[in-house]
Formats: sequence, C-alpha cells, structure tokens
Amino acid sequence: MRMVDMIQKKKHGEKLNKDEIDFIVRGYTNGEIPDYQMSAFLMAVCFQGMSKEETSNLTIAFVNSGDQVDLSKIKGIKVDKHSTGGVGDKISLIVIPLVASVGIPVAKMSGRGLGHTGGTIDKLEAIKGFKTELSGEEFITNVNEHKMAIVGQSENLTPADKKTYALRDVTATVDSIPLIASSIMSKKIASGADAIVLDVKVGSGAFMKSVEQAKELAKTMVDIGEALNRKTVAVITNMDQPLGHEVGNANEIREAIEVLSGKGSQDEATVALTIASYMTMLGGAFEDFNTAYSELSEIIKSGKAIEKLKEMIRIQGGDDTVVDNPSKLPNAKYHIEVKATESGYINAINAESIGISAMLLGAGRKTKSDVIDYAAGITINKKIGDKVDIDETLCILHTNLKENKQAELTAKGAFFISETKPEPVKHIYEIIA
Amino acid sequence: MRMVDMIQKKKHGEKLNKDEIDFIVRGYTNGEIPDYQMSAFLMAVCFQGMSKEETSNLTIAFVNSGDQVDLSKIKGIKVDKHSTGGVGDKISLIVIPLVASVGIPVAKMSGRGLGHTGGTIDKLEAIKGFKTELSGEEFITNVNEHKMAIVGQSENLTPADKKTYALRDVTATVDSIPLIASSIMSKKIASGADAIVLDVKVGSGAFMKSVEQAKELAKTMVDIGEALNRKTVAVITNMDQPLGHEVGNANEIREAIEVLSGKGSQDEATVALTIASYMTMLGGAFEDFNTAYSELSEIIKSGKAIEKLKEMIRIQGGDDTVVDNPSKLPNAKYHIEVKATESGYINAINAESIGISAMLLGAGRKTKSDVIDYAAGITINKKIGDKVDIDETLCILHTNLKENKQAELTAKGAFFISETKPEPVKHIYEIIA
Repeated sequence: MRMVDMIQKKKHGEKLNKDEIDFIVRGYTNGEIPDYQMSAFLMAVCFQGMSKEETSNLTIAFVNSGDQVDLSKIKGIKVDKHSTGGVGDKISLIVIPLVASVGIPVAKMSGRGLGHTGGTIDKLEAIKGFKTELSGEEFITNVNEHKMAIVGQSENLTPADKKTYALRDVTATVDSIPLIASSIMSKKIASGADAIVLDVKVGSGAFMKSVEQAKELAKTMVDIGEALNRKTVAVITNMDQPLGHEVGNANEIREAIEVLSGKGSQDEATVALTIASYMTMLGGAFEDFNTAYSELSEIIKSGKAIEKLKEMIRIQGGDDTVVDNPSKLPNAKYHIEVKATESGYINAINAESIGISAMLLGAGRKTKSDVIDYAAGITINKKIGDKVDIDETLCILHTNLKENKQAELTAKGAFFISETKPEPVKHIYEIIA
Repeated sequence: MRMVDMIQKKKHGEKLNKDEIDFIVRGYTNGEIPDYQMSAFLMAVCFQGMSKEETSNLTIAFVNSGDQVDLSKIKGIKVDKHSTGGVGDKISLIVIPLVASVGIPVAKMSGRGLGHTGGTIDKLEAIKGFKTELSGEEFITNVNEHKMAIVGQSENLTPADKKTYALRDVTATVDSIPLIASSIMSKKIASGADAIVLDVKVGSGAFMKSVEQAKELAKTMVDIGEALNRKTVAVITNMDQPLGHEVGNANEIREAIEVLSGKGSQDEATVALTIASYMTMLGGAFEDFNTAYSELSEIIKSGKAIEKLKEMIRIQGGDDTVVDNPSKLPNAKYHIEVKATESGYINAINAESIGISAMLLGAGRKTKSDVIDYAAGITINKKIGDKVDIDETLCILHTNLKENKQAELTAKGAFFISETKPEPVKHIYEIIA
C-alpha cells in the first residue's frame, strides 16, 4: 500500500476500506507517513467527505492508536457527555451530580480550556483543594461508591487524533464534519463510555454556525456511535449568546450552584435538564423524556442535587463549604462595569467575543502554558431580548489585572442593540438519536 | 500574511492576488512554509482551480525563483518549442535544423528522459562526440552564427517549480491544469523564449487522456503566454500510439535523419512540419500556415534540411558522418522479434507500455541515476490501421541485455488486434492560438 495512492483515491471520491484507513492512521502515528502526505489527504477529505463506514473506521483507528480506559469494574451503564465547546458552558458541573443522584454512574474525563472556551477541569480547580488527578483505582472506587468522579484526560488517549488535529489546525483542514466527528467520538470511546450524550452547540460562539451544519455533525456522531455499539444521543443547543450569566471559572461554579439549588438562569437549567434527562434515559433510569425531565427537576427542588454536588467536591478533596457560602470562592480585585451607549433591545451577544474578553481578563489561556486566574471572568447582566437603557450595565468584568482596555472593548463590541425586540431565543433546537 | 489563511482562501474558492502568490512561492522556496502546508494548498488548487490571473502570477513567481537565461544577444525572435512528453517523440531533433534553415534562431534548452518518455538531450548523445554542455557564450555564438544550438537545462532554472513538482509527485496533486501549465510555461520563460510553440500530446501514451483535457491545458498555457507577452501557439497532437516507428535513442536519431531526408513515416513528418510551421511563423519568416508548410516541405526535398542537421551535429562536436551512414550509430547485440498471436487489424498501441518496454531494454531511466544504453530501443513494424497476420512481426526489441522477458511481455501487451479495421488516425487534433 502506498499513501500517494490513498490520497489519489480519496481525491477522486472513491471510498477507502478498513485496511486502507488503518494503514493511513498507523503510518501517520508512527511517522512512516509524513505530514505533507497526511495534509494533502485531509484536504481531499474536506472536499470529498467520508462515508459512514469510513468515518467509523477512522474513529476505531484513532481509538486503537493509544490507551483505552477500562471501566469494566464500574457497575452499570457508564454514560458520558460531551460538549462541542461553548462560552459559559458549565453544563457538566450541573449534570454530573444531577445524573449521579439518580444512581447512574458518571465516570467523567474532561479537558482544559484553550482560547475562547473554558474547560470543566479548570473551573473545578477554582474550588480550594479540588483534585482533578486521581489514580485509576481512586477514580473507579469513587464512581462505584458515589456514582461520580471527574478527572483530566489521560495523556496517551487517541494520540493519532492529537497528531492529526495539530496538523489540521495549521493546514486549514479543521472544518470537515467526518474529521470533527471521528475526533470527538474517538476520545469518548477511548475513555470507556458505554453511552454518550452530545451537546452540539450552534451559533456565534460555536464552531458550527448554522443549525443545518450542527445537525449534520450530530447525525454523523450518532451514526458512529451506532456503528460502534455505543448508544448515542445528540442535543443541538443554542450558542448565539453565552450560556447563563457567568463566564469564567469561580463565577461559573457559583452559577452551577444556583442552578442545582433551583435558582439560576432558565437557559442554563433547560439545557442541563435536557442533557441530564437523556443521560439518565441511556443509563436505564427512566423510560421517557418527560418522566426523566420532571423527576430530575424534582431532585433539584428537593435539595438532593445540591447535596450531591457537595459530596462530589468533598470526595475529590475540595472545600464543600463553598456551596453554602459561595463568597469563599476566589474573588477579583477589580469589577468593571461595561455600559450601554444606546437604548433598545439586546438582539445578539457574540459569545466568541465574550470568551475572548474573559481570556484577556485572565480567565483563560491564550497558549497551553498560560496560568489561569480563577477569580477572573464576566457577569452578563443583559441577555438577548432584554430591554436596555443608555448607561445601563451590560456586563461586569472581574479581573486582577490593571490594564483591561482591550477586554473592555471586546466585551462591549459583543452586544448588538437594536430598537426592535428580537424573537424569543430557542434553547434547544433538536434531538438527534 | 499566514499560509494557513492562504490555504483557507483557496479552499473556499477565493482568488489569491499577486502578493499572496508571491508570498506562497517565496516562502515555500526558502523553507519558511513547510511541505505540509504547501501540499494542503496544492490539493485545494486541484479542487478549486486557479483563475487566468492567478495562473500567470504563479508562473511569474516560479520564473523569479531562480536564474533567467539572457538571450538578448541573440538577434531575432527566439522561438522555443515544448512537448508535454510522448513516446518516440523525436520532433525536436527534426524541427531544430528545419526552423534554423529558414534563418529563425532556435536556442533550445532540453531535458533528459525519465520513466517511459525519452529526452532529446539523451537521444543526441547517442551521436559520438555530441556535446550537450556548452558555455553561455558558445551557446549564443552558435545560435547567432548557425541559427541553432541545443543544451541541457540549467540547474538553477525555476527552483520553486522543481521543489513544488517533487511534492506534487508524492501527494497526488499532479493532475491540475493550472499547476501543469505554470510549471511548463515558467521553464520556457526562464529559458529566455520570446515565442513558444507547444506540442500538447493526447492519448494512451500522454498525460492528457482526452482531447478536451488537452485543449484546456493548451488554452491555459496560451493564456499564460499572452499575459506574459510571449506569443504562444499550442498544437494538440495524437499520442494514441508511439510517434513514428522508432522508440529509443540511436534508432530515433536514425528516424529523424529519414524524415529530414524526405523519407520516414507520415505521422512524424506531419507533426514536425506543423510544429516547425508555427515556429517559423512566430519567428516572422512566413505570413500564413500553408506557405510555411509548403516552403518547409520544399526545404526537406531540396536536401537543405539534412545538411542543416549535419551542421548542427558538427558545431556541437558530433560525428556528422552518421547522417550519411547511420549504421555508424550504436547498434545492439540482440534483436528480438515480437510476433502476433492472432490475425486482424492493429486497433491500438499503448504508447506508455512501449515506452516502459524500451526503458526495460536499457533505453531509458527508471531512476535519475540510471545509465542509458543508446543502442537499446524498439522498432514498431505495425501501426494502427495496419493489417497483421498470425506470426507476423509487430515490433523488434533492440537490446544488449540477456534477460528481456518482462520487456517482451510489456511490448506484446501494448498491441490490440481486432477483426475490424479502425478509423484512420488523426495526427493533429487542433491548433490553439
């Protein structure tokens, strides 16, 4: 087999079989296939796409390239959850204790943030003492005993995907649905998930800009799940504005506490309850969506959910008193109010700009080696549909930095104010199963 | 400027301006842009194509990447000729003395052969003493005094194209019309041509398999010529079978002598006279094609053309007595007759197979470092349309090698015999000017 022939085949729109895809992924991972052939191949994939079979074979090849987490010692169906990345996305913080509280095991591996999107692991580390590195044994014991645990992703998970992703990033071959889908699904499968709920974000703050695109990505991932015997459901959710009111780390923990206490913003609660409902359904706790949704809402109302969050913090070494006393979470020195320079209705909030502004305030990483300031972040006071008067506060920037001009301008530029009241925002667009 | 943005633009079908193309070619040549970005870009070009303007800007960038031959000391319009590569293609050997004999200067730079196609420089070296390395001064003096000279291509001509071509070869990005066209035209322009006649081959032995493709390539090259102020004419010629009856080196010289003596095969003479006619017209010797064609035919009949060939051999140090006595040219030890195993009409001769067979006999190079046996080659006895009886000789293999099984099988497999007589072969399909 020669790589040049594989490139030629894909270029001409022919399908590659399992052996051919294995040859490409194995050869690229061990360095026998050079970057310049792989990038030409990836560009051909961007134009010609991949069939269902090719995409699932690519996913398997990625999974086989590295370690696979063995969760067989955990009782029950292990349901994982993945978000394609958003701004103010604290859904994992909410659904882990919520799903665990009905007895479904959540063995969560999560990433760190980079650029305008944050990572769940970073957010949890805003809690004093919270340990995100657990031994394999601790992780499994915690899930068996408490139905939940969260750790940072293992280093040697899907190295072929890591190497391919780094190449895609510098060769303008990122925006290919089968490549995105196999990248995400391979990580979930290598992490040992039996079933997967995908939160596919769409809108200004997401990689997918149209619902059509998001549906195609969702469908492709659900197809991979089916081909690889992992029950998979995708929920297409709105990212035309940041989720909830808080973007950052400590402040996102605060908002998660509110939602789990039955307070907090409606969009956040709706999305979290929807995701959690499908997770518990795939885990076998409920038969239908409506039952799941109302039972989980009850669990929040009853106070059981917030107790489960305390338990989660405690078992991972964190200070669980922050739940009852959120002011104990890191707090920034400066709070800058960004004010409206015109009156009207908020028509749009560019979530990516808000994410970048938060990063500039210290809440995120420009490069992998940057250190996060857990106290930094943004509180969004006005959301789409809200009426705003001139000089009213649109958002508040929290930071320990003295110089914040660029962050301020970026945040301000994220708000689009118009005289007309926009249509109500849809939080959930569609379910793909 | 970032290369990743250039790739993205081309991927989305946007046009690149002159600065952007210069940035890519300069960066790639000096190593600032890595192979893996260039190959992704080239693959995007394969799918999205290039506009006329982009293609001529790419050609200029290739030309500017290396040396440019200064032919300003040569009086008159310097007309160059290029063939896209065929089997048994000895047209250059014929047209150089023919065009020079009417006073049009031919300052020819030519390549060596690789794979199934031969190179004019190699063929001439079959003549004892023939020197293909001349100093710049010798080259110019010869053209001024004798109206002709031929040398091997300079090492540092269009290095950007050389580097790009090597990458295209291993990334399945060869078959892109704008990339092929700019590669060819940049070499001709860097070689100092004022006007160019292109012999675009089409058929089983050529890179272009259909007349439509060949026309597109021809049109693209003529457009580049126009944009860069070089009068350019393309002649689309048949390569559905080898040209003439001889494929190799010494035997091709023999056939060129025949054609210049007014003997030799009709296809060879027709193509050579057509190419020479356009060369002399671009050089200003004749007003119209019919006059050029009949005057050049006269020159052959009068014996002036064959005398000019002798002169060309002499001034480059070669033994010109081979012209009157071709048996002095290298002769092989073994002559293997390949016979028909069925009766009928020759319907096709796969020229690429004949070229590969000749290479296996020693007439060509598998890799750049291989040494050529000038005596090796193939004489084609039967051509398309010829009637053949069982056991009649189809072709004769000339070689100094003892083991020739594979060459024999390959040559035999090139002939397709059928009961029906095929349509007469068209030698010239079209002129694009």
